[in-house]
Amino acid sequence: MSLKESGKYKSLDFLKFEEVLNENPENPSITILAKDENDEKAVILLRKKPFQSNVCQEMLSECDLDLDLKNDRYHTFDGTIAAKYQPLRYSMTYPASELHIAKARSAPTEIWIETKEMFERLHQPFISSQLHSLQWVYNILDKNREKCNEVDRIVVEDPDPKTGFLVVPDLKWDGKDTKQLNLCVLINRRDIPTVRHLNSDHLDLLENILDKSSKEIAAKYKIPEKQLRMYFHYPPSHYHLHVHITSTFFGQGCNTERAILLTDVIENIKMKSSFYAERTMSLPLRVGHKLHNIFENE
Amino acid sequence: MSLKESGKYKSLDFLKFEEVLNENPENPSITILAKDENDEKAVILLRKKPFQSNVCQEMLSECDLDLDLKNDRYHTFDGTIAAKYQPLRYSMTYPASELHIAKARSAPTEIWIETKEMFERLHQPFISSQLHSLQWVYNILDKNREKCNEVDRIVVEDPDPKTGFLVVPDLKWDGKDTKQLNLCVLINRRDIPTVRHLNSDHLDLLENILDKSSKEIAAKYKIPEKQLRMYFHYPPSHYHLHVHITSTFFGQGCNTERAILLTDVIENIKMKSSFYAERTMSLPLRVGHKLHNIFENE
Repeated sequence: MSLKESGKYKSLDFLKFEEVLNENPENPSITILAKDENDEKAVILLRKKPFQSNVCQEMLSECDLDLDLKNDRYHTFDGTIAAKYQPLRYSMTYPASELHIAKARSAPTEIWIETKEMFERLHQPFISSQLHSLQWVYNILDKNREKCNEVDRIVVEDPDPKTGFLVVPDLKWDGKDTKQLNLCVLINRRDIPTVRHLNSDHLDLLENILDKSSKEIAAKYKIPEKQLRMYFHYPPSHYHLHVHITSTFFGQGCNTERAILLTDVIENIKMKSSFYAERTMSLPLRVGHKLHNIFENE
Repeated sequence: MSLKESGKYKSLDFLKFEEVLNENPENPSITILAKDENDEKAVILLRKKPFQSNVCQEMLSECDLDLDLKNDRYHTFDGTIAAKYQPLRYSMTYPASELHIAKARSAPTEIWIETKEMFERLHQPFISSQLHSLQWVYNILDKNREKCNEVDRIVVEDPDPKTGFLVVPDLKWDGKDTKQLNLCVLINRRDIPTVRHLNSDHLDLLENILDKSSKEIAAKYKIPEKQLRMYFHYPPSHYHLHVHITSTFFGQGCNTERAILLTDVIENIKMKSSFYAERTMSLPLRVGHKLHNIFENE
């Protein structure tokens, strides 16, 4: 019996483990490649779900502990608690194509140093080749309800064609837990691909985003403005200028080599209009990404 | 029977759960406050340990799954696997003082914006009051083996009094798994507390750290230099200038509001020697921290 026939499964025992594609000890997660009897492939991501705060007494009482370290009042144990208190999340792509497998496979990120000259010669032509893939952004900006339901999730809006923007929840956020708040500001203008393209002509736009969106979001979600982190990615995942807004409780996606604070961008441009046009910048690239190949092969 | 009497425990059932002090759904972890029969307090941090890659077949076969989402080839299940495949780490402080409890309690981080004037009036006096607590750094720099065993863990060393430094593993790193590589560069000079105090006089020092430490670390741990992230914290946890070096596989501690890349610092100082002395900077402060109180109450 295969998953495709039934859809109701208690186990994946029809799959044979082949290879660990990826492991992240921090969150923790593991990605496994497996095969069925017909050699069809499956990519399976397992993640440990958060602790359940309603079973704390059970986690104290029904644990099986093994003392590892003890120093005065400080003790460390390895332990286990019953499986029912430790749910997992299984995400399976099956049948998986070679592309699914390649995307799931662990790849290091390398921090390249991009001069102005490298940007103009290597990165700008790549940006120009990617502009066709921005239709999904324009669907939101045009409020094309036929093509996208994100239109109904807009949380802040400023229609000004020069300095205006829309704010929508990031798809990864459930829209509820404000400690994991994750929003995206899409600017109305369609002529600014990245931070590299910003100069003092854009200060009104940047200051409008900083002031208006942070104020309205703080009010809407009832959190202090100082607990919002507003930043650009460089390189961004898509080349229509956007600002990420996340809670300071939530650290994913804001690594310093890729994330640049909106307040820093404003400061730098005020100091020197051409700051980002001339700047030598860090450029983190995942090995195997198209842009990495361009830099690697030049 | 209490933990103090025996030291050998299979359970913490002598403790009564009182309160969840902190939860982090990302890693995931939970911090619990509990009390024994004499009202002595315990602070217990539970963390889920990484998946064990040697039991992948068991995690496929011996799971108990409940289908949540299915769309074409994409499936998501909630599931459980036997407790023995899901070890936990229990870290207990017992008896715990009020200070232990306050440190464990969840507090938001606020991103303050620090002008030059605020730095000079509020932050610099605080730095001056903290310099007494740097003896542990000097123990390492002086190679005082009586007082510290970190001396035996030095991995790179440059004795030059002006441009030299020591590199030691961060205490949180096991020194083995290079995907979690975490090192600290302590400069030999004792007159530079933070990034704010750097100017073009220090370029030789900064470029020496950038070139020499990254080259030697990449060779020693057999990883590409481009997979090393080198950054300062602002504010730092201690006021003797140091550089963090982590693997790009490892994201903790490098949030953009606090972490500043060494390469960016060099670029900025080359452009303008007084960049960091004059700069308006982001200053992330944990609510309840001494420096937060200073800014909040001024």
